[in-house]
Amino acid sequence: MIKVGIAGGTGYTGVELLRLLAVHPQVALQVVTSRADAGIPVSQMYPSLRGFVDMPFTHPGQARLELCDLVFFATPNGIAMQQVRALLDAGVKVIDLAADFRLQDIATWEKWYGMTHACPDLVSEAVYGLPEVYRAQIKTARLVANPGCYPTAVQLGFIPLLEAGAIETASLIADAKSGVSGAGRKGEIGNLFAEAADNFKAYGVAGHRHLPEIRQGLQRAAEGKEVGLTFVPHLTPMIRGIHATLYGRLTREIDLQALFEQRYASELFVDVMPAGCQPDTRSVRGANYCRIAVHRPQGGDTVVVLSVIDNLVKGAAGQAVQNMNIMFGLAEHTALKNVALLP
Amino acid sequence: MIKVGIAGGTGYTGVELLRLLAVHPQVALQVVTSRADAGIPVSQMYPSLRGFVDMPFTHPGQARLELCDLVFFATPNGIAMQQVRALLDAGVKVIDLAADFRLQDIATWEKWYGMTHACPDLVSEAVYGLPEVYRAQIKTARLVANPGCYPTAVQLGFIPLLEAGAIETASLIADAKSGVSGAGRKGEIGNLFAEAADNFKAYGVAGHRHLPEIRQGLQRAAEGKEVGLTFVPHLTPMIRGIHATLYGRLTREIDLQALFEQRYASELFVDVMPAGCQPDTRSVRGANYCRIAVHRPQGGDTVVVLSVIDNLVKGAAGQAVQNMNIMFGLAEHTALKNVALLP
Amino acid sequence: MIKVGIAGGTGYTGVELLRLLAVHPQVALQVVTSRADAGIPVSQMYPSLRGFVDMPFTHPGQARLELCDLVFFATPNGIAMQQVRALLDAGVKVIDLAADFRLQDIATWEKWYGMTHACPDLVSEAVYGLPEVYRAQIKTARLVANPGCYPTAVQLGFIPLLEAGAIETASLIADAKSGVSGAGRKGEIGNLFAEAADNFKAYGVAGHRHLPEIRQGLQRAAEGKEVGLTFVPHLTPMIRGIHATLYGRLTREIDLQALFEQRYASELFVDVMPAGCQPDTRSVRGANYCRIAVHRPQGGDTVVVLSVIDNLVKGAAGQAVQNMNIMFGLAEHTALKNVALLP
Amino acid sequence: MIKVGIAGGTGYTGVELLRLLAVHPQVALQVVTSRADAGIPVSQMYPSLRGFVDMPFTHPGQARLELCDLVFFATPNGIAMQQVRALLDAGVKVIDLAADFRLQDIATWEKWYGMTHACPDLVSEAVYGLPEVYRAQIKTARLVANPGCYPTAVQLGFIPLLEAGAIETASLIADAKSGVSGAGRKGEIGNLFAEAADNFKAYGVAGHRHLPEIRQGLQRAAEGKEVGLTFVPHLTPMIRGIHATLYGRLTREIDLQALFEQRYASELFVDVMPAGCQPDTRSVRGANYCRIAVHRPQGGDTVVVLSVIDNLVKGAAGQAVQNMNIMFGLAEHTALKNVALLP
Repeated sequence: MIKVGIAGGTGYTGVELLRLLAVHPQVALQVVTSRADAGIPVSQMYPSLRGFVDMPFTHPGQARLELCDLVFFATPNGIAMQQVRALLDAGVKVIDLAADFRLQDIATWEKWYGMTHACPDLVSEAVYGLPEVYRAQIKTARLVANPGCYPTAVQLGFIPLLEAGAIETASLIADAKSGVSGAGRKGEIGNLFAEAADNFKAYGVAGHRHLPEIRQGLQRAAEGKEVGLTFVPHLTPMIRGIHATLYGRLTREIDLQALFEQRYASELFVDVMPAGCQPDTRSVRGANYCRIAVHRPQGGDTVVVLSVIDNLVKGAAGQAVQNMNIMFGLAEHTALKNVALLP
Repeated sequence: MIKVGIAGGTGYTGVELLRLLAVHPQVALQVVTSRADAGIPVSQMYPSLRGFVDMPFTHPGQARLELCDLVFFATPNGIAMQQVRALLDAGVKVIDLAADFRLQDIATWEKWYGMTHACPDLVSEAVYGLPEVYRAQIKTARLVANPGCYPTAVQLGFIPLLEAGAIETASLIADAKSGVSGAGRKGEIGNLFAEAADNFKAYGVAGHRHLPEIRQGLQRAAEGKEVGLTFVPHLTPMIRGIHATLYGRLTREIDLQALFEQRYASELFVDVMPAGCQPDTRSVRGANYCRIAVHRPQGGDTVVVLSVIDNLVKGAAGQAVQNMNIMFGLAEHTALKNVALLP
Repeated sequence: MIKVGIAGGTGYTGVELLRLLAVHPQVALQVVTSRADAGIPVSQMYPSLRGFVDMPFTHPGQARLELCDLVFFATPNGIAMQQVRALLDAGVKVIDLAADFRLQDIATWEKWYGMTHACPDLVSEAVYGLPEVYRAQIKTARLVANPGCYPTAVQLGFIPLLEAGAIETASLIADAKSGVSGAGRKGEIGNLFAEAADNFKAYGVAGHRHLPEIRQGLQRAAEGKEVGLTFVPHLTPMIRGIHATLYGRLTREIDLQALFEQRYASELFVDVMPAGCQPDTRSVRGANYCRIAVHRPQGGDTVVVLSVIDNLVKGAAGQAVQNMNIMFGLAEHTALKNVALLP
Repeated sequence: MIKVGIAGGTGYTGVELLRLLAVHPQVALQVVTSRADAGIPVSQMYPSLRGFVDMPFTHPGQARLELCDLVFFATPNGIAMQQVRALLDAGVKVIDLAADFRLQDIATWEKWYGMTHACPDLVSEAVYGLPEVYRAQIKTARLVANPGCYPTAVQLGFIPLLEAGAIETASLIADAKSGVSGAGRKGEIGNLFAEAADNFKAYGVAGHRHLPEIRQGLQRAAEGKEVGLTFVPHLTPMIRGIHATLYGRLTREIDLQALFEQRYASELFVDVMPAGCQPDTRSVRGANYCRIAVHRPQGGDTVVVLSVIDNLVKGAAGQAVQNMNIMFGLAEHTALKNVALLP
C-alpha cells in the first residue's frame, strides 16, 4: 500500500483527490491537512465522504507528511515550493497540483505569479505531469508538476498538429470555456450562483496564468519553434468541465483524423472521436478522459480541434492519480477506469 | 459471471444501469435492446460509454433475453408485464424498473396506469425491491419490482416513524422535489432547458402515480393502519436528485435521532446524518445512498424528515443493481461503493 | 418628481430597486450610498445600468439623504433603525427593505436578530408594507416595513383561508423554496455556483428569522388566534423566485377557488390561477406579481396552496416601489406593469 | 395606433414579441396565429401574459392579417415567403423574423435552407433589418428581413474593423456561444434540461445556416472584399444570451477603442464598454442592447472582440420592434428602453 498524504484538502481539488483515492485499492490515506479547518472531520465538510474518509483535517504543523510515500499538494500557489525540498530529502515523492513547478523559466514564473520562487533548482528536476507526453520521465520522477486544467485540454488538442508540423505556429488561437469549479472554493462574488448562473463571459483576456504554461508545452511540441498563441478563457454556467476550441492554419494537406488517431492510439485516457463528432463536456464528467474531435470546416485551411476534459479530473486530481500510478508502477488506470456521469 | 440483459436501454435508467454494470466485476453484459435505435452502437448515443460498452442496441425481436441469467427492464410501463412470464419460465430472473409489479392491488394499478394488467398472478409473486425492508424476500425472488424514485425517498424517511407508531397516520405530508432527469429522456416541451431552468413548479398535485405506491408501503410499515397522505411533487432545476421533505404529527415523546440511527444501523446505503444536519442532494449524486436527517422544529409536535437520493441511482438503477447483488448472493455493495460526485 | 435616495445600493435588492426606479416616470434618483464602494460608478458594478444610472456610489457620511422625499433602505438588518428617526424628523418618508421594523414585538425581534433595537417607539408607528392587507395604512405612513420575501409568498397564500376561518390554525405547514439571490450578494461558500448548482437542500429547519414575521401576519389574519406554523425553507438552484407550498387542514366545506378569487378580485398584483393550475416561478420572473393556485388533492381535508413570487420584486424591491406609489398617491402599478421574462 | 399581427406566436420569438408589444404605447395587437394551438388562450400557454394579452391563438386560415398595418412572422423558415406578397399587395408591412429574406443570393439560400424560394423577386426588395447599418433603408421598407441572432452579435462586433480596413479579411474566426432558447421551443432531446444543463458543446462545426448570412454582411462591410470566416457555434447552459468571441489579424496600427466608440457613438443599442472590460451576457438579459469590448491581448497582432446580446431581444424580437419603430416613424427606443434583468 502507498502511504499518501494530502496537503490542503479543503478545496475542490482536494475533495476530488479524496473521492478518487478513497476507492483506490493500493492507497492508504494517512493525513489530510488544512490550516483553517484543522480538527473538523473531513466528512463533515464533505458529507459525500461519510463512510469513506473517517479522519479529521490535520493542522499542517502537526502533520507528519515525511512519513508518507507520496504527498499531493492541493494548496494555493506558492505553498508547495516551501515544503518540497524537505519531503524529497526524506524520500517522499511529491505531486504538486498547483503551479509552483510548471514553468521551467523562473523569470516567467515569477512575473506571472508575482512571487519569488523558493527553490528554482528543483524546478529543473520537476517533471511536467502530462503522461501522454512525458510518461517515461514521470516513471522515475521524484517531483511531478501536475498540469493546469486549461493547459491539459489545450495541449492535448494542439500537440498532434504541432508534432506533425501541420499548422502555422505563429497565430494559434485557443478559445476555452470552463465550468465554475475551476475558480476554486473561495467566497468570491463573481462565482456566486446568482452571478455565474444563466450567464456567460470572457475573463483574463489581457493575460491568464495558464498562457505561459500552454505556450511552453506547445513550443516543446513544435520542437522549440516560437509559438504565437491567443488564449481567451471564458466562464460558463456549469460546475465541471472544460471545452477548448482550438484554431490553427494548416500548412499542408494531411489526413487530420488519422493523425489524431495515430498519435493517441495507445493512450487510454485520450479518446479521439469519430470524424464529424462534437464531444460534450458531460461525456467526461467525473472521469479521467480527454475526448477530442478534429474538424476542417468548409474544407478551408483552418483546422478546428474540440477538446474536452473534466477540469477536476483529467484537469487536476485524476491526472494526479494517473501520475501516481505511473510513478509507483501500478496499472495506469487503477481507480480511474470509471464511466462518466451522464446525464 | 452473471449474464445480464437490459430491455430498453436508451433512457436515463438504461444508461445509468450501463454505467454501473460496465464496471461490475461479476456481470457479463449480453444484450441491450431498443426498438427505435436498434443497430446503433450504444456508445454512439452515450459517448460516456466509449471503451466500456462496445455493442449496438439490439431490436427486441432479435434479442435472446431468455439466454440471460437476469434481465433488467428499463422500459416504459406496460412492457415488462408482456414478457416476464416467458422469461421466468425460461429460468431467467427479472428486475422491472418500471411500475408493472409495484402495486399489489390490481384494480388500483389499472386505474392509475390506465391499462389492463397482463399478468395479475405474477404481481402477487413479485417482491418489492426495497432491500431495507424486504431483503429476505429479495434473496429468493425470481421477480423484483424495483421501487419508484419518489417512493424510495419517501418510504425510507417515514418508515422508522411508522414502524415505531410514533406519528399520526391520518395526515402525512410528503413535499418532494425532483431533478428533471426523473421525467425521462423524452422530447417534451416542459422538460426543455429553456423551460425547466431557472424555474420551480409543483406538478401532479391532483394525483401522481407514485401516490398509491407510497401509500401501500407506508401502510405496510404502519401494520396495515390506513394512511392518509398528501403528496406534492415539484420539478427543480437540477439534473439528478430527489429531496423529500416529510411532515408528521408526533403521537408521543420519542428520541427521534436514536430511532432513525437504530433502524438503519446495519444499512450500508441509508445514512442517518448527525442531529441538526440538512443533507444536500449532491451528497448522493451518482451514488447509491439515501441520506436522512430528522428534525423537530421549535420543539413542536411536528416532525420533519429530510430524505435525499439520486433518483437514477438509489431511486432506480443503483437500487436495481443492489437487488441483483442480493438475488445472486454477491456482496450487496458490489460495484456500488463509490463516492458521490461533489462538487 | 419624487426625490429618492437609496441607502445601501450594492446588494441585489439595491440593484433591483435601481432597475425599477430608473424607468419610473415620477422618480428623480438623488443618491445611492455604499460604504465599501463609495466613488465607484454604479454602472461599473452593474453594467446593466449603463445609460440609466450615471452617478457613483456615495459614502453614507457624505450622502444628504435628508434632502430626499423618500429613502429606501436596502442595507443589512440593524442599519435603518439607526438613521430613521433623523430622516422622519426631517420630513423624509422611509421604506425599509430590511427587517428592522417588521416585528411589532420587540423582544421577539431582539431574540431572532441578536441585537438591541435602537428605536422601539418607531416600530409601533411603522406600517407593514403588504398592500393587499394594509393599503389604507400605507397611504398615510411615514415609515413602511417592507415584508420579507418568504413572508410575502406565505402570507398571501394563507390569508384567504385564515380570514375565512376555513383551516385549523394549530398546525400550518409552509414548505418554501427560494432561488439563491435570496441569500444576497455576499461571498459565502454555500452560495457559490459550484455549491448551489445542481443541488437542493433545506436550511434553517430549526428556526429561520422569517418564521416570527410570518406567524405575526398569520395571527392577525386569524384575528389573533394562536397560529402553529412549521416553516421549512429550501435552497433551489435558480437565481430568482420563491415557491411556497402551503398545507392546512380544512375545518369546513368551502369553495376554495371562489374564496381566493374573491379575496384578490381587486388586487392587480395577486393573480389567482384557474382551478387545476400550478404556477411556475418563471411566470413572475422580474415582475411584481404573486400567482396563486389552490388545490384539494384527492378531495381530502388537506388544502394545498401554491404561491409564487420573484423574491427580488414582489418579495423586495417591487413591493417597495408599490408601497412608494401608494404613499405618494401615484397609480399603484406605476413602473411595475411589465411582463415577466419567460423563457 | 399601429395594428399589429403576429404569425406564429407560440415559439420563444413569438412570446418575446408579445412581452415587448404588450406594453408598447403605440401598438394595438390584433391577432396572434398558431396552427397547432388555435383556440387556446395565449395566456394559458404563457401565464406571464395573464392580464396583458387576452386573446386566443387564431388559426392561420381564420386570421385576417391583411387588416393589420404590420405583420411579424415568427414562423419557421419557409412560411413567410408564401404569404408576404399578398400582404404587401394589401398594403401591409412585414417583418420576417425567420430567414426567408435574409440572403440576397437565392442559390445560396436554397442550398442552405433546402427549399425552393417562393418569391425571389421580393428578396431583392427586402431590407436587412440591422438598424446600425441599414437604418435609412429600413425607414422606407415594406419588407424587413430581421437578422439572425448569431449574425447580429458577430456583425456588430466585426463591422467597425472591416469598415476601417483594419483586419485581414481572409481568416476571420467567430467562436460563438448561445443559450438554449436559441434552439427554439421544440421537443428535441438535445435541448432537454437533463441533456443541456451542466454541459457545453460545439455543434454545426461543419456548417451552420448563419454562416452565409454573416459572410454576406461582413463582405458588404468590407466593401465587397472576399471574406474567409470560420464560424463555430456552441451550446452553453443558460436560457438566453449570445457571446461572440471574434478574432482577426490586424493589418495596421489603429486605436481600437476609439474606432469602436466612434462607430457606435450615436447608436443607443450598441454599448462599447470601457477598455479592459469583458461584458457578461446577463448585462443584456431581457434588454435590446449589444455590449461590445475590444482587446489586443499581449499587444500582439490579433484583435479580440467580445460581443454580447440577448438572442431573443437584440437577436430577434427586440430588434424586430426596433425595426418597427423605425418603419413607423416612432422614437427608435419606444418600449425598448428597459434595464436588463441582473441578477
